[in-house]
Amino acid sequence: MNPGDGNLMDKIVSLAKRRGFVFPGSEIYGGLANSWDYGPLGVELKNNIKAAWWSHFVHRREDMVGLDSAVIMSPKVWQASGHTGTGFADPLVECKNCHERFRADQIDLSAPCPNCGMSHTFTEPRSFNILMKTFLGAVEGEKAEAYLRGETAQGIFIDFKSIVDVARKPLPFGVAQIGKAFRNEITPGNFIFRTREFEQMEIEYFIPVPVRDEDWAEPFDYWRREIVSWLDGIGIAREKIHEDDIPDGERAHYSKRTIDFEFDYPFGRKELCGLAYRTDFDLKNHFKDAPYKDPQTAEAFWPHVIEPSLGVDRTMLALLVASYAEDGDRAMLKLKPRVAPFKAAVFPLLSNKPHLVEKARSVYDALRRRHMVAWDDRGNIGKRYYAQDEIGTPFCITVDFDTLGEGDAANKDTVTVRDRDNATQTRLPIKELASFIERSLEADTE
Amino acid sequence: MNPGDGNLMDKIVSLAKRRGFVFPGSEIYGGLANSWDYGPLGVELKNNIKAAWWSHFVHRREDMVGLDSAVIMSPKVWQASGHTGTGFADPLVECKNCHERFRADQIDLSAPCPNCGMSHTFTEPRSFNILMKTFLGAVEGEKAEAYLRGETAQGIFIDFKSIVDVARKPLPFGVAQIGKAFRNEITPGNFIFRTREFEQMEIEYFIPVPVRDEDWAEPFDYWRREIVSWLDGIGIAREKIHEDDIPDGERAHYSKRTIDFEFDYPFGRKELCGLAYRTDFDLKNHFKDAPYKDPQTAEAFWPHVIEPSLGVDRTMLALLVASYAEDGDRAMLKLKPRVAPFKAAVFPLLSNKPHLVEKARSVYDALRRRHMVAWDDRGNIGKRYYAQDEIGTPFCITVDFDTLGEGDAANKDTVTVRDRDNATQTRLPIKELASFIERSLEADTE
Repeated sequence: MNPGDGNLMDKIVSLAKRRGFVFPGSEIYGGLANSWDYGPLGVELKNNIKAAWWSHFVHRREDMVGLDSAVIMSPKVWQASGHTGTGFADPLVECKNCHERFRADQIDLSAPCPNCGMSHTFTEPRSFNILMKTFLGAVEGEKAEAYLRGETAQGIFIDFKSIVDVARKPLPFGVAQIGKAFRNEITPGNFIFRTREFEQMEIEYFIPVPVRDEDWAEPFDYWRREIVSWLDGIGIAREKIHEDDIPDGERAHYSKRTIDFEFDYPFGRKELCGLAYRTDFDLKNHFKDAPYKDPQTAEAFWPHVIEPSLGVDRTMLALLVASYAEDGDRAMLKLKPRVAPFKAAVFPLLSNKPHLVEKARSVYDALRRRHMVAWDDRGNIGKRYYAQDEIGTPFCITVDFDTLGEGDAANKDTVTVRDRDNATQTRLPIKELASFIERSLEADTE
Repeated sequence: MNPGDGNLMDKIVSLAKRRGFVFPGSEIYGGLANSWDYGPLGVELKNNIKAAWWSHFVHRREDMVGLDSAVIMSPKVWQASGHTGTGFADPLVECKNCHERFRADQIDLSAPCPNCGMSHTFTEPRSFNILMKTFLGAVEGEKAEAYLRGETAQGIFIDFKSIVDVARKPLPFGVAQIGKAFRNEITPGNFIFRTREFEQMEIEYFIPVPVRDEDWAEPFDYWRREIVSWLDGIGIAREKIHEDDIPDGERAHYSKRTIDFEFDYPFGRKELCGLAYRTDFDLKNHFKDAPYKDPQTAEAFWPHVIEPSLGVDRTMLALLVASYAEDGDRAMLKLKPRVAPFKAAVFPLLSNKPHLVEKARSVYDALRRRHMVAWDDRGNIGKRYYAQDEIGTPFCITVDFDTLGEGDAANKDTVTVRDRDNATQTRLPIKELASFIERSLEADTE
C-alpha cells in the first residue's frame, strides 16, 4: 500500500473496529472525543508489542531493570521537573472568527484559518499547561490537588536512588518502564496517534558524567541504532523510519541532542518515537545531593541520561499501517508471528464431518495450551483463510481426510499449514506444529 | 510464619523495600500517602501474576476474550452505572474530639473513638463519593469534568455489544480485563492492600437469562472453584482462603449472591477478591435495547453476568505473605517458579578464577535468552544462596571445577542446581538446564 493513499486511514480504522482491534471509546454514549478502547485483538497486539519491548530491553539485558511507578505522584515532582511551569505547556491561538483553537507551533499564523478560511484572525499565543489535574481525599473542600503523570519518565528519576541501592548495577545502566500517561493535548486526533490518555515505553539510560563529547555521543548512537533495530524486529522496517535530528535552538533547553524518529502515517510523516540526551537536568532537578556514588572511587555525582521514548499506541498504529496490504478487494495484515494476536488458526476441512472436527479439536486443544490460537469451522476454507489474513494470523492449519489416514497413507497425522504471506501450503506432522510455531516466534528476536 | 505475627507486616514491608519489590511513592518528596512504586523485582512479580491470570483465563479458554478499555470514559457511563450517586459512596463519620474520620461501616459507633479514646463523639454518617475527578480540555473555564474509572468492569459492559459483534461467541462467554482503577478511599492503608490507585483483574462472565436458580447457581459455583484453584496455582494455597458468603440484606442491591474470598493478612482476615452474581443490572443500566441476540432463535435479551474480580496489588501482597518464611535469622520467599522474578541464578563457584567465571557467563548468557535469570559473583556461595532465597529465586546454578572437567570427569559440563525450598543440590547437564526451568514453570498450570 502507498501510505499516501488518502483512504488508507479510513480502511485501517474500519478494519480495526470491524475485527475488534480498536473501538471508539464510550461509543454507546455518543463517544468521548479521541478516546479509544482496545478490543479482543487489539489488547493482544498491544500486549505483544509491550512484551517484545520488555523482553528485548529488560529480560535479555544485564544493564537494565524495570520499574512500575505510580500514575499519581506528589505534586512536588511536577514542580521540580518543570512540568507545572511553561515547560510542559502548549502555546495556543484562537481564530477570532470561528473560535477554533490551534497549536501556535503547528500552523502558519500568517495564513488563513484552516477551519473557516478567514485571514488575520488569530489571537496572540497563550500558554496552556497540559498536565491533567485530580483531587485526593474524600472530603470536599479538603481535597489535595494532584496531577496524573504527563510522562512515565519522572517516576524513574525520583526512584533513581532507591533503584541504585537495590539493583547495584555499575554505570552505564538503564531503567525501563511501561505505563499510562495523561496529557490535556490541544490537538488530539488521528485515531490512536495522539490521545489524552496513552501508554508509554520509556528507558532512562544513565551514563557517567561525560568528559569528552564522545562519552555521550557513543551511547546516544548506540541507542539510535537500537531503536531502529527493535522497530524493524517487530515489523516496522528500518526503511520506513526517518530520523529528524532536531537542530540547535529547536530542542528543549535541557537537551544536548534530540532525534525524532518519524513514520509515514497516512496523515503524513509524524513522530513515532524519540531519543534525547537530557544531560543531568532531571537528576539535578530532583536531587540536591548527588544520588550516585562510584563503587570504585566513592566519588558522588549526578549521572547523565539518554532517553529512548516510545508510545505503545502509536507503535501499534505504525505497525497496522506497515503491515496493511491488499489483494484485490480484500485486506490483510502482514504482522510478524511474534506480534500477531493469533499465532495460528486451526480448521477442520469440513465442519459437518464429526471425525474431522474431533481430530481438528484435538490439534487446536494441544496448541492453545501454549499459544494464542484461533478455531474456525464456519463457511469454506477460502473464507476462513481470508478472515484470518485480515487479522494477521500467520498460519492456517487444516485437518483433512489425509490427516485421518483416509487419503494418502503417508500423510496420516499430518496437516496442511498455509502461510499467510505467500499462500503456499506445506504438510507438517501434527507433532511438529508446536515447535514450528515456536521457531516462527523466535525469528527476528536476535 | 504465623500470619498473626505482629511483626510480619513490618518484615515484609522492609524486605519489599530493601530488595526492590515495593518503594514508598514519591519518597524523596516526603512521600504521597498510600502510594507505592513497584521496583525492579516488584514489577516482575506483578507482571508474572498478570501473565498467569491472562494465560489461564484468556489464552487457554475458548469462551473468553480480552479487553483494554480507557481509564477515562464519558461521565455518562458513571451516571448510568450508579457510581456518581450514593451507590459508590462511603458513609463517613468524624470524631468531634480529634476530627479523625472513619468509615461508618467499619467501626463500632457506640464504642470509644479508636484514635483518641473519647466516647459518644461521632457525627452522623455522611456519604462521600469516591470517584476521582479530572478535567478534559486545555482551556481553563471550558474544561469538561470527567472521572477516572472506579473499576475496570464498566468498560466491559459499555463495550459489550461491540465485543459480541467481533468475537461471535455463543453464551456463556466472558470478557477479561486488567488495568488501573482509582478511588478516593476513605481509609487507605496497610501497605499495598488498599490504595487510591490500584490495578484490577476482572472478568464479566455472561450467561443466558436464568430460567431456574441452578442456571446461575451452577456457573457461579464453577467460578467459585476456579478462583480458588487459580490462587492455589500461583501459590496462595486453598487452605488459606476463607469464603464469606454475604447474607441477604448485606449485599449490593443488584447482587443475588456475593462471596468475598478472604485471606489472613498480618493485619487481619480481609478481602482478597470477590465473586458476585450481578444479574442483568449492569447491561440494563447501559442498554435501552437488548444487546444480545440468540444466534439460533434470534430472540434478543439482556444476558446476566457473574463477576470474578481480583486486585493485582492485594494478590501480590497475599503472595508475599503466603510465601514468606524464616530460617533462623534469615528470610525467604517460597514463590513458585512461575511467579518468581528470577527463575534461576547463575554463579561461578569462585569469582577470582577467570575460566570459572567465563564458563558461568556462558551458562548465564544462554539461559537469559529465554528466562529472567540473575547473575551473582559476590561474596561466598552461602551468602549468594541466602540473597536469592530472600527474593524467591527457586534455583541456584553453580559452575564449579567439575563443570570444567577439572574434578570428577563424569561431571564435566554439569552444574549443581540447588533447590531453594529443601536446600538439596543435584547435578544437571548444562544442556538440560533450559528444559529443567521450563518444566518447573509448567508445574501447577493445569
